[in-house]
Amino acid sequence: MAFELLKKDPQSAARRGRITTRHGIVNTPVFMPVGTRATVKALSPAELEELNAEIILGNTYHLFLRPGMEIMALAGGLHKFSNWQRSILTDSGGFQVFSLSKLRKVTPDGVKFASHIDGSKFFLGPVESMAIQRTLDSDIVMAFDECTPYPATYLEAEKSLNLTLRWERMSREQTLNDGQLRFGIVQGSIYEDLRQRCARELVEIGFDGYAIGGVSVGESEPEMLHAVDSAAPFLPENAPRYLMGVGTPRQIIESVARGVDMFDCVMPTRLGRHGSAFVGFGETIPVKAGKYAKDFTPIDENCGCYACRNKFTKAYIRHLFNVGEILGVRLVTLHNVYYFLNLARQIREAIEGGTFTELRQKFQ
Amino acid sequence: MAFELLKKDPQSAARRGRITTRHGIVNTPVFMPVGTRATVKALSPAELEELNAEIILGNTYHLFLRPGMEIMALAGGLHKFSNWQRSILTDSGGFQVFSLSKLRKVTPDGVKFASHIDGSKFFLGPVESMAIQRTLDSDIVMAFDECTPYPATYLEAEKSLNLTLRWERMSREQTLNDGQLRFGIVQGSIYEDLRQRCARELVEIGFDGYAIGGVSVGESEPEMLHAVDSAAPFLPENAPRYLMGVGTPRQIIESVARGVDMFDCVMPTRLGRHGSAFVGFGETIPVKAGKYAKDFTPIDENCGCYACRNKFTKAYIRHLFNVGEILGVRLVTLHNVYYFLNLARQIREAIEGGTFTELRQKFQ
Repeated sequence: MAFELLKKDPQSAARRGRITTRHGIVNTPVFMPVGTRATVKALSPAELEELNAEIILGNTYHLFLRPGMEIMALAGGLHKFSNWQRSILTDSGGFQVFSLSKLRKVTPDGVKFASHIDGSKFFLGPVESMAIQRTLDSDIVMAFDECTPYPATYLEAEKSLNLTLRWERMSREQTLNDGQLRFGIVQGSIYEDLRQRCARELVEIGFDGYAIGGVSVGESEPEMLHAVDSAAPFLPENAPRYLMGVGTPRQIIESVARGVDMFDCVMPTRLGRHGSAFVGFGETIPVKAGKYAKDFTPIDENCGCYACRNKFTKAYIRHLFNVGEILGVRLVTLHNVYYFLNLARQIREAIEGGTFTELRQKFQ
Repeated sequence: MAFELLKKDPQSAARRGRITTRHGIVNTPVFMPVGTRATVKALSPAELEELNAEIILGNTYHLFLRPGMEIMALAGGLHKFSNWQRSILTDSGGFQVFSLSKLRKVTPDGVKFASHIDGSKFFLGPVESMAIQRTLDSDIVMAFDECTPYPATYLEAEKSLNLTLRWERMSREQTLNDGQLRFGIVQGSIYEDLRQRCARELVEIGFDGYAIGGVSVGESEPEMLHAVDSAAPFLPENAPRYLMGVGTPRQIIESVARGVDMFDCVMPTRLGRHGSAFVGFGETIPVKAGKYAKDFTPIDENCGCYACRNKFTKAYIRHLFNVGEILGVRLVTLHNVYYFLNLARQIREAIEGGTFTELRQKFQ
């Protein structure tokens, strides 16, 4: 079995678990840094290992366009190409086809679209997405779905859901490489009965894990958490649950409380590039701002990341951003990714130690 | 004594030596990576230590403008500001005042100029430069000089030299912090007798080390080596000699053969940022070029840097440059700085082992 449920929190739906992939153990709840284009922005694989990242993301859509599948096949997959030895989850490309590409035409078998880079035409559907993820040879493969736009009327959401279910069945029928795990994705927008129906049908189709998608697309936080509440109870206890593209530290901990095991988000790397650092219980501070020009303390005195542990000061980091030096981006990105991985570690330890509710309260 | 001469090559003027600063030992011949704005571009202090860099450069002109001396004083100097524990040499700012700034007006006591960043007005002369380098608290302080432009007539070069000698005397008279070493700079353009005269006068003034400046400013390689030949024999044997801003691997080894101990150059970091990697005996290859898109070998199979040792392929690095990812710049910069530090190590070992002439021939 790829997933072991180790402990359940008695006061919430939080779970402590363990996924075993071909590349090692992934302890859940887990935060997965995003490596869109075969690199977690600004970080090296060695740094990610030192940060104890057990799994990172790759993006089918981006890698399909550049470097393209011929190079990826010649490289022998994404692990070998990017020199990352631990687990990789790849998305299906569905989200990016709908959010980035142009001139989309949806057919029953997938989407015709024009690349956002140079306008060249491609077709991506469940058959193609599974073939790409076979070539990438990721450890966890996501089914191809339609990310329902927000807002959507009930009828729009239902129509989109029907297409998603067709595509997920087709995704399920494709052959994968030995040991690749395949996750289904629950859609259904903000509609409880659609989410529930989707969850039930996916369980019937049968996947190794289940994601909740179509969140973090502009809806409110209560709507997002409601989507989780609508789906999670209908997903099998003995399979991992992944909330796609979420989120803030608070959203992560609230979703863990609702039974979610896996998270990914560009926030730590994106805010890192823009000079914002996570501190405390999910707050951010704009390290690159002039007000830190004479602040000779680290981002967070209590943080154990390379930047804080070695007393790189806010004044220094602010200077690096002010003059456009790469080391500034590197230090804040390292700090932020550490923050999210450390948050997941704290969550795991709290579930193990029976103190999850206390930890959760700190983030309110 | 800050400098120990350990061994002289019997077949050339090459020397193996050791400088002791307040921050440790610097084994010569040495290559000093350039950290213009309080960071060696794209690298972290931890990486530089792992690369065995024993000394790096900082730039007075750039640090004077940003973050400025108030912040540098509050930080307690450049070491503390940038978190670098080993030795630092700072230039005097003279070179940048002449190459970067605008609206220069030269007076007997220094230069009035407008910042290249925002046009604000400043004055920098020997008194100011020494004060700044006291605040930076670098281990090796460079005298303030005029970098004679190239080409210069004999009369222009002589006039510039006279000003330089005045400024170097003034630089010598300023008080430094305990343990700071002070280097004079030989100017004189391409004119042998001016170089010789400058060297003799500087030795009379008395410095802890001697630099050869006004090179790498557009002159030919033979002219540059001739400038070294004109000055080196008149510099004391028991003081380190530093060829400023040089150069290619071949230029470095040729200058070592002429008795130079110290080098700095932006080439490894600048070419690294632009995707060119040093290989073999000083050649470069454009790793970011399309022709490497399917080359699944490292930059250099025999190289011991992080990128090559861990088999990051040219295809991967090319992809990173192609999509604009920071890791590409990091990997090629690391490789190039390793190349130059490793070149200096090979030179030191060759002098020790009596094989310097053989090594030198490989770079012809």
